[in-house]
Amino acid sequence: MNGQNPSLGRKFDLLMVFLIIISVVLMILETMPELASLQRIFLRLELAFVVIFIVAYVVRVLVSRPRRAYIFGFYGIIDLLAILPALLLPAASGVRVVRLLRVFRLIRLFKLSRYSSAIRLFQVALRDIIEELVLFLVFPIMVVLALAFGIYHFENPVQPEYFRSVPASLWWAIVSLTSVGYGDAYPITTGGKIFTSFMLLVGMGVVSVPSALLATALSKAAQERRSPNESSLQ
Amino acid sequence: MNGQNPSLGRKFDLLMVFLIIISVVLMILETMPELASLQRIFLRLELAFVVIFIVAYVVRVLVSRPRRAYIFGFYGIIDLLAILPALLLPAASGVRVVRLLRVFRLIRLFKLSRYSSAIRLFQVALRDIIEELVLFLVFPIMVVLALAFGIYHFENPVQPEYFRSVPASLWWAIVSLTSVGYGDAYPITTGGKIFTSFMLLVGMGVVSVPSALLATALSKAAQERRSPNESSLQ
Amino acid sequence: MNGQNPSLGRKFDLLMVFLIIISVVLMILETMPELASLQRIFLRLELAFVVIFIVAYVVRVLVSRPRRAYIFGFYGIIDLLAILPALLLPAASGVRVVRLLRVFRLIRLFKLSRYSSAIRLFQVALRDIIEELVLFLVFPIMVVLALAFGIYHFENPVQPEYFRSVPASLWWAIVSLTSVGYGDAYPITTGGKIFTSFMLLVGMGVVSVPSALLATALSKAAQERRSPNESSLQ
Amino acid sequence: MNGQNPSLGRKFDLLMVFLIIISVVLMILETMPELASLQRIFLRLELAFVVIFIVAYVVRVLVSRPRRAYIFGFYGIIDLLAILPALLLPAASGVRVVRLLRVFRLIRLFKLSRYSSAIRLFQVALRDIIEELVLFLVFPIMVVLALAFGIYHFENPVQPEYFRSVPASLWWAIVSLTSVGYGDAYPITTGGKIFTSFMLLVGMGVVSVPSALLATALSKAAQERRSPNESSLQ
Repeated sequence: MNGQNPSLGRKFDLLMVFLIIISVVLMILETMPELASLQRIFLRLELAFVVIFIVAYVVRVLVSRPRRAYIFGFYGIIDLLAILPALLLPAASGVRVVRLLRVFRLIRLFKLSRYSSAIRLFQVALRDIIEELVLFLVFPIMVVLALAFGIYHFENPVQPEYFRSVPASLWWAIVSLTSVGYGDAYPITTGGKIFTSFMLLVGMGVVSVPSALLATALSKAAQERRSPNESSLQ
Repeated sequence: MNGQNPSLGRKFDLLMVFLIIISVVLMILETMPELASLQRIFLRLELAFVVIFIVAYVVRVLVSRPRRAYIFGFYGIIDLLAILPALLLPAASGVRVVRLLRVFRLIRLFKLSRYSSAIRLFQVALRDIIEELVLFLVFPIMVVLALAFGIYHFENPVQPEYFRSVPASLWWAIVSLTSVGYGDAYPITTGGKIFTSFMLLVGMGVVSVPSALLATALSKAAQERRSPNESSLQ
Repeated sequence: MNGQNPSLGRKFDLLMVFLIIISVVLMILETMPELASLQRIFLRLELAFVVIFIVAYVVRVLVSRPRRAYIFGFYGIIDLLAILPALLLPAASGVRVVRLLRVFRLIRLFKLSRYSSAIRLFQVALRDIIEELVLFLVFPIMVVLALAFGIYHFENPVQPEYFRSVPASLWWAIVSLTSVGYGDAYPITTGGKIFTSFMLLVGMGVVSVPSALLATALSKAAQERRSPNESSLQ
Repeated sequence: MNGQNPSLGRKFDLLMVFLIIISVVLMILETMPELASLQRIFLRLELAFVVIFIVAYVVRVLVSRPRRAYIFGFYGIIDLLAILPALLLPAASGVRVVRLLRVFRLIRLFKLSRYSSAIRLFQVALRDIIEELVLFLVFPIMVVLALAFGIYHFENPVQPEYFRSVPASLWWAIVSLTSVGYGDAYPITTGGKIFTSFMLLVGMGVVSVPSALLATALSKAAQERRSPNESSLQ
């Protein structure tokens, strides 16, 4: 990923990060009905960015030494996906389709992470706990499922509109166990309240474990990077 | 738990995990009113799964060398409980009873954990902190009780429909301290608001300690497993 | 705190824990309007418990060797406060006053912690971080105050009923920063939403630090207790 | 920052902390419509405090030995900003403007942190993780943006009043990912619910990482401060 000319490559990367941020801000602003009068300007800027990103993709393909490595690599595919909707845009003129493609263009954001060294630290931490992380995702899934089945049993006869089925109850279970609690649905039966209370107290600890594991691993990876040969000093 | 023929036992276990996941997905789908027309197909698939799980139970009983160890062991009892409702199904034909039994069949999910090595890591971590975990569950219970009694005192005279009794206030206290906050009930008196503010700031830390302890212990157990003789190298 | 006769003292302590739990359950049940018909039984049981706790207090005073240490110690004062409302009960016959005294009797719960070794671990952990804990409580207070002042500025002109004053906004700020979010009040102005978004992202980390510090210290204290002379082995 | 006469400087600092706390309490109380009758007293006390803080600023400028270091230093600028609105007050007589200035005076609160040693511990911890903290702020921002774009796509056609634009959806995304969940807006389409469920389970871990990193670093910094030459003893 390090270019042949480090100084030039660095400047090019910084410019790209800057352009990606600007284009994301434009994507946000053009959804505002208050700025509907500026829609024409947004479209032109959008077009300019599409041209820039296509040129940047072509340059990258030409410059990267093992050309295959970039084109079929993770970032090459993301870069292609990010410009693909723009290439298909003229063909798809329906408003609804274009909006859907806009969401797809969000992948551009991932290019941001490309230029940061955080990814490497993240990868080290993730490799360190990937086994535990996957294994401990089983517990949260089981807790969420158990809560959804249980609440469906208790609340479906009383509130069939909110707890229509287990999939509908799954939405409520995830919103509850992540402690968001919008309040669009909540148990009203005594059984449902007791069951939910128990599951919240027990289940929340289980649901928060993967996130806690990730934070601890990141903290440790960051620490080890700073003092890699601490043990060799003894 | 390791079979005589490791290769065959492993394949059997993987097949069972696959079947359990399919049967859980079916259990979820058959609750959807939108798929009511497929109810007959669900029932037949359900029957097929019941037969498979009964056969699997019998095979396990026959294959396991100290037969007692399996039948009266934790997993043997879970396996039996998971097929028991199906065995009793023909007798219980009432719709209401069958629905209740469906919830009971969720225990099948626990069989999932049987085949994963996460359980062992979990057991090590749990054994490591079981004493602290039990002891520190006393604090959250005290905080929840104190919040329920206090809010009952402040809010019952003003909102008797929401804070009808201490058990009813316990529901609100747990929903608040786990930070879910559905918004179905909240204090409206100045005293109740001040008391709740104080309890939230102080109590949330206490309530989150068990979950934090568990995450730390898991992270440490995972780390020690990777480098078990770290100290012997010095 | 260790009695002269360890075996007898231990049995006495266990009995007291059992009685405290029963009396707390009774206190919870007697608030239920559904059980209003049992009110007479609750009163008699309550009376019995009061007598028992008074006797236990007297016994403790007589038995404890340096009598002053118990009477003027932390637990002696709690024991006295827990029976005091019962002693004053006959004088105060107003229903409202009696209810208020009931809340006061909750202090009995703290006696529970008396018999557990968790307290010692908690004390070690607390002593270890008391300085940081106090210091880092300054940041959450500042964040809560800043959020309350800010939201009062943005929302008071538009929603004077919900953000009537800074103290009223403090309630909303605490409910928001502890992530409970009942939904009884929320910003509706663009300025208020931007300000709240920023404060939530920045402030939540700060508010959760004391709780995280406590959990880490507890985990470390528990670990050190298990291997107290780890360093002396090297 | 240590004065020439430590004893006198310490007393001066403690007095200032006391005065700042009193002035903050006054600022809170004067917003209460219930205390509107005391408005005249509040104004006079406010005037007294302004005079005191101006005098304190002048004294500090005169006393500090490298005068520039204070005047152009972080605390000198904060001290000046905190008294600036008061100096401009006579000119600005409009009620609306005065209220805005009041918010600005909140900077006074930061002077509180000036006198505490917590700042130093905070600085050590922050310096230790500043790199990771900045880098890992990129992930939460990406998650929040992705959630806002996605929910805008799913919910805008159905609930245009709540998910009017991406900036409006950003408010909902931040309230959701910080697990506050006021319940003023929530997805009602199946696609929106599935997307939100997925983002909550995955994104919450990512959003909580910076806060967890900070807590771990603080805990470690506190620990190292207590035993700075632990390794040199071996």
